[in-house]
Amino acid sequence: MADQYAQPREDKRPTEIPAIRWEEPPEGPVLVLLDQTRLPAEEVELVCTDASALVEAIHSLAVRGAPLLGIAGAYGVALAAARGFDVEEAAQALEGARPTAVNLSVGVRRARSAHRAELTRTGDPTAAATAALAAARTLHQQDAEASARMAAHGLALLDELLPGGGHRILTHCNTGSLVSGGEGTALAVALAAHRAGQLRRLWVDETRPLLQGARLTAYEAARHGMAYTLLTDNAAGSLFAAGEVDAVLIGADRIAADGSVANKVGSYPLAVLARYHHVPFIVVAPLTTVDPQTPDGASIEVEQRPGFEVTEVTAPQVPVAGAGGGIPVAPLGAQAYNPAFDVTPPELVTAIVTEEGAVSPVTAEVLAELCARSRQVTIS
Amino acid sequence: MADQYAQPREDKRPTEIPAIRWEEPPEGPVLVLLDQTRLPAEEVELVCTDASALVEAIHSLAVRGAPLLGIAGAYGVALAAARGFDVEEAAQALEGARPTAVNLSVGVRRARSAHRAELTRTGDPTAAATAALAAARTLHQQDAEASARMAAHGLALLDELLPGGGHRILTHCNTGSLVSGGEGTALAVALAAHRAGQLRRLWVDETRPLLQGARLTAYEAARHGMAYTLLTDNAAGSLFAAGEVDAVLIGADRIAADGSVANKVGSYPLAVLARYHHVPFIVVAPLTTVDPQTPDGASIEVEQRPGFEVTEVTAPQVPVAGAGGGIPVAPLGAQAYNPAFDVTPPELVTAIVTEEGAVSPVTAEVLAELCARSRQVTIS
Repeated sequence: MADQYAQPREDKRPTEIPAIRWEEPPEGPVLVLLDQTRLPAEEVELVCTDASALVEAIHSLAVRGAPLLGIAGAYGVALAAARGFDVEEAAQALEGARPTAVNLSVGVRRARSAHRAELTRTGDPTAAATAALAAARTLHQQDAEASARMAAHGLALLDELLPGGGHRILTHCNTGSLVSGGEGTALAVALAAHRAGQLRRLWVDETRPLLQGARLTAYEAARHGMAYTLLTDNAAGSLFAAGEVDAVLIGADRIAADGSVANKVGSYPLAVLARYHHVPFIVVAPLTTVDPQTPDGASIEVEQRPGFEVTEVTAPQVPVAGAGGGIPVAPLGAQAYNPAFDVTPPELVTAIVTEEGAVSPVTAEVLAELCARSRQVTIS
Repeated sequence: MADQYAQPREDKRPTEIPAIRWEEPPEGPVLVLLDQTRLPAEEVELVCTDASALVEAIHSLAVRGAPLLGIAGAYGVALAAARGFDVEEAAQALEGARPTAVNLSVGVRRARSAHRAELTRTGDPTAAATAALAAARTLHQQDAEASARMAAHGLALLDELLPGGGHRILTHCNTGSLVSGGEGTALAVALAAHRAGQLRRLWVDETRPLLQGARLTAYEAARHGMAYTLLTDNAAGSLFAAGEVDAVLIGADRIAADGSVANKVGSYPLAVLARYHHVPFIVVAPLTTVDPQTPDGASIEVEQRPGFEVTEVTAPQVPVAGAGGGIPVAPLGAQAYNPAFDVTPPELVTAIVTEEGAVSPVTAEVLAELCARSRQVTIS
């Protein structure tokens, strides 16, 4: 670990990484996406001129990540409206592009409702298109603001838990600007620490099987000039044992009412390691992630993904060979257990950081209170 | 996990997998190796007609694994002698093929000593060559016998710890016949359970970064017709949480005098998870693995391996692209933390199974006693 405090090579490119942007005429109206399937090898922009191009981009995973999909869906509706296509048809196609992505559906509906309401009120398709775009932009901005607030609350929590500064933070999967309208969740907190001169090291789990850590988080960390080091998921134990981790910061796919956290597979083992080594385990997620309809961890159904994600390796430059589109690394016919995420019980979570503040210790009561307060703020 | 109790497809090939064998004339004298770099895609035999071909095979990792390297080294000396080459020169080249592999050096020296002694005694090169081959064969047979005894002791321990039978065993890395003159260590125990009708499921960690679990353990399990399922290393936590693991069985690279176990990176997190879930964590290793010169875990120096093993993915069929010979999956210039192994303290080890019996609980005193007893047996 001789090189662990070395600074990464300076990256002269701008550090802002817009995963999505709307272009007005004369270039537009178009929706421009950073093609995430080509990262980290190449930065390629994908220009969507209609909703079906966006549907294609969602299918190919060029655009991914819960909050970003919501924003993309809203812009997709706005694009159909601005270009004079059938908005209802476009909305339906977008919602169907990834049926399990709740945020996508929410984003599409927000823009479509704004479009419908304006069309009903004025009968003017141009005004309705403007309303859809405004709804998309609002969603985009709200997400960016929520990121910024999570980052501020998270940094304050780190300062409180680790008064010495010089944080060495371990993170898992990708939770930065590639999944967000802003700078993300857990990675936004690490980035805030970096900007405050408080980040000594970002340890990046590669995050098998799809390597979002190696491919995407490392890419974002490099672009921001953060001092980061990549590791295989199973090497995290050695870091804990060596006292090299001050805190774990992860995102969340869903949080049950009791504070159980569903997140990318590999999060739960980190929580157990963190507890064994008395290291804070911090979840960073917007309050929309809290699902009051899911009472506890046992009620969260874990999606099982195809085995070929484990038995084959895929990367942007890997030629297609196996049934799953990658290179086989296991015997033909090998079965694989491939849960998409795991569930960490609230007793292993030191704190949940939201845009409305941090919850610690994590209890059903405090979470419910925060959600209620958030709804009041939104309504008022 | 609907398919987890499904039987794997029947494999009609013989289940014996000789990683190494000596061929007499007329085909020989030659040393035939199973080329492990081509697994699991292809079973290709590599025929070594002289020691330099074996040196090449050691360099390319066609032959690997501590005990197997020792056996290969001894046969390499015998091959040089049988073919009338300079035995001292061959021995030196073989020892230098992988200087960190203690077993390789030990095996080479054993055959060379036998050769020297016979040459001194009789002055007959043919008799000396026969003595070298006899030494290699004895080493090979001793290793096979040690495997068989570890398997028997390990199975007895499983029956004692898990009287219900139907074991679901989690293993890490490759510890079977591909690294042994016999059937290996941890995997030999699982295989004994399988033959006794007591193995309900073998959970195989893929074992990043070099994927020995996916490539080699899955291959061996399939060849033996064991009910196995592959998983990413970070998915083990989900299995523990779901109560799907009855015991963890791993091998060891080195065991310190206090019982601290150095083994493939990712072993320690399994030990912590096993403790948290009250699951036995069992180490299977021959007594030669115990190093009385290393007092404790802190004295074990952990080898740091090149970062490209993490930042690039290699597989038999992957075309060479990156600096490390694989396909880059991380940004260019990404640093990686890549310890070869980790250290599990004795308090997390339920038992160490050796060819002389099992040690539980693991203490310096009991280990020392077992080693002393083993030396007496060897000397008498």
